Amino acid sequence: MNYPNGIRKEKTNSSISKTHRNRGMNLEADINDTNEYYLYTDVAVIHKKPTPITINKVDYKSRRDAVIKEAHFIVPSTTDYNGIYRGKYIDFEAKETKSLTSFPLNNIHKHQIEHLKKIYNHGGIGFIIVRFSKLNKTYLLFIEDLIFFLENNKRASIPISYFDEKGYIIKEGLNPRLDFLKIVDKKGVV
Amino acid sequence: MNYPNGIRKEKTNSSISKTHRNRGMNLEADINDTNEYYLYTDVAVIHKKPTPITINKVDYKSRRDAVIKEAHFIVPSTTDYNGIYRGKYIDFEAKETKSLTSFPLNNIHKHQIEHLKKIYNHGGIGFIIVRFSKLNKTYLLFIEDLIFFLENNKRASIPISYFDEKGYIIKEGLNPRLDFLKIVDKKGVV
Repeated sequence: MNYPNGIRKEKTNSSISKTHRNRGMNLEADINDTNEYYLYTDVAVIHKKPTPITINKVDYKSRRDAVIKEAHFIVPSTTDYNGIYRGKYIDFEAKETKSLTSFPLNNIHKHQIEHLKKIYNHGGIGFIIVRFSKLNKTYLLFIEDLIFFLENNKRASIPISYFDEKGYIIKEGLNPRLDFLKIVDKKGVV
Repeated sequence: MNYPNGIRKEKTNSSISKTHRNRGMNLEADINDTNEYYLYTDVAVIHKKPTPITINKVDYKSRRDAVIKEAHFIVPSTTDYNGIYRGKYIDFEAKETKSLTSFPLNNIHKHQIEHLKKIYNHGGIGFIIVRFSKLNKTYLLFIEDLIFFLENNKRASIPISYFDEKGYIIKEGLNPRLDFLKIVDKKGVV
C-alpha cells in the first residue's frame, strides 16, 4: 500500500508506443484503445487521468521548453478513469495481477475504494476492471459487489471464484479491444 | 496557444500551501477549497485532474523514493475539473485574466472546447469559470453559451458584456469560497 501506484503506471505510460505494437499485452493500453474507440464512435467520453505528481524543480530554459527536473509520484486520491456514458457519470480503476487464484486488495488504495463508494452513493456507475494476466481473463466487478465483499470478508485478496460469481467477463475483441460498456448495458444501470 | 497551460498551473499547485494562507487570492485555490467543501458535505464529488506530463527519466533509488528527473508538460486533452453532481456528470475549466474588458480565447485550448462540446452532447453539464482578477468578478458561462459565442463571432476574445448577458456571477463566500453549484441549480439542469 505504501508503494506509490504511479510508478508502475508511469512505466506503462512510457511504453504506450511499444504496447501499440503488442496489442492485448497490457490492460492499460487495451482500455486506452477502447476509450479512443468510444470517443471516435461517439459512444462515450472517457479519459485516463494523468499520473499525480508533485513538482519541485522546473527548468525554464524558454517559455516553450520548460523541463521538470525534479518531481515525485504521489498517491492518487481518485481512480484512473472517468467520464460520461449516456448522460451518466462513470468511474473505474483497472488492475492486472499475475496471481492465478485471487486479486490482492493491496493493488487498490483504500481512498480509491472510498472514492468509488462515493460515486455509487451519488448515483454514478463505478467498478473495477481486473485482469488475471496469466489466465488471460479480464473481469468487471461493480463497486456494490466489491463493497459487499469487503464488508463480509477479512481476506486480503478476492478469490477468482468471487469474480466468477459476482463479476462479468469482458471478452476481448479487435475493436473495441475491451467492450466494458456492454457489461454496463447488460446490468441495465443506464 | 503554444505555451503549455501546465506550466502556469504547476506554479499554482506548488503554491497551494501559500494560497491557503491567502485565501481568495487565486482562482484555482478557491475552486479546490470549494470542491473540498462539496466533498466533505457530500454535495458533489469533483476533483482537479493532475497536470498532464510525459516522463522521460526516473531515478529509482529505492522502491519508495522514485524521483522523476526529467519530464515535460503536455497539452491537456480535457479540462481540469470533472466529477459527479446529483447523479450527473459535470466538467469545467477555470481561467483567470488580468484584462479589464474581455477574456482572451487563447486561454483555452481548442480541444478543451471540443471536449466540453462532447460533454454537452452526451447530456453532461459543462462550463467555464472565468475570473477577471482586477475587477474581482468571477463568472460561470455554460458551454452552450460559449459555443453560441464562438459560432457567431470571429473575435479572439469574449467581451465582459457577453459574460454579463449570458453568464452568471459566482459570489465569493467563506465556505464554500465559490458556490458554483448554486448556479447549476439555478439553471435547473439537474
